[in-house]
Amino acid sequence: MDIRFLWPGRTKNEALRELQAFYLAKISRMNPCEIVETAEARGVTERFEKKILEIEARGLEKRFKDDYIVCLSDRGRHMSSVEFARFFENLSVRSVRTVAFVVGGFLGLAPRILDLADLQLSLSRMTFSHETCRVMLMEQIYRSLSITKGRAYAK
Amino acid sequence: MDIRFLWPGRTKNEALRELQAFYLAKISRMNPCEIVETAEARGVTERFEKKILEIEARGLEKRFKDDYIVCLSDRGRHMSSVEFARFFENLSVRSVRTVAFVVGGFLGLAPRILDLADLQLSLSRMTFSHETCRVMLMEQIYRSLSITKGRAYAK
Repeated sequence: MDIRFLWPGRTKNEALRELQAFYLAKISRMNPCEIVETAEARGVTERFEKKILEIEARGLEKRFKDDYIVCLSDRGRHMSSVEFARFFENLSVRSVRTVAFVVGGFLGLAPRILDLADLQLSLSRMTFSHETCRVMLMEQIYRSLSITKGRAYAK
Repeated sequence: MDIRFLWPGRTKNEALRELQAFYLAKISRMNPCEIVETAEARGVTERFEKKILEIEARGLEKRFKDDYIVCLSDRGRHMSSVEFARFFENLSVRSVRTVAFVVGGFLGLAPRILDLADLQLSLSRMTFSHETCRVMLMEQIYRSLSITKGRAYAK
């Protein structure tokens, strides 16, 4: 099962970008994995929230294939790492070929992208920046692969 | 109210260390804040879990003053960012002079440190590395200060 991470635009914070590269390398050693940076709304101010979300939604849709789609959402399901690892392992058992993890931009994701999701997932009751969430998600995928492949992994 | 972050040893991952410095600078602009790196168990292998936790517990205890102690723990309380911001604001109303946020090392915290805590806090049902948790916590404190001081802050 291939893993794809999709999000609008490049992560701006350099240290977080380094961490993305760090986890991408780690995950790739265990599983095919790529990051897809989709179209980002540029030069549109935050006042035009709908417009930004619409531009970003179109950018994401273009890149969806026949993926199993997991969207991060603060109203999503909460799971422990072990539950998430089981869910994740179960996808490959169900012959899912590609799983796409989608994280929004500054304003989150358009409702119609959330509606497309096979699973809406929440990483925490607390709110973290969308860029931090990208890294938290990648760390969690790495942890899941480590759990299911039975490797020791730092707490 | 002063804010102190206490944890055994220096964060090893360079990108996470950069993020710590990033949030320390941001928090410090709003509130007195410091990071205290306490004694770390060196040259003790993971087999001696109790010994490591004991060394690190002693290192932490030495640095506790009359602080209100918040320990991260996977069995701790879950809060939303708004609830956490309220809790946080409430501390200063109650004339707490210093709040110490304590994050363990690789193996977490010794039970007697957890027993000392005025609050045990969990950031997520998912497990993240202790180094990632340090940064998540700092981001959350920054977010709390931004919420209580009414500033806009990135989602």
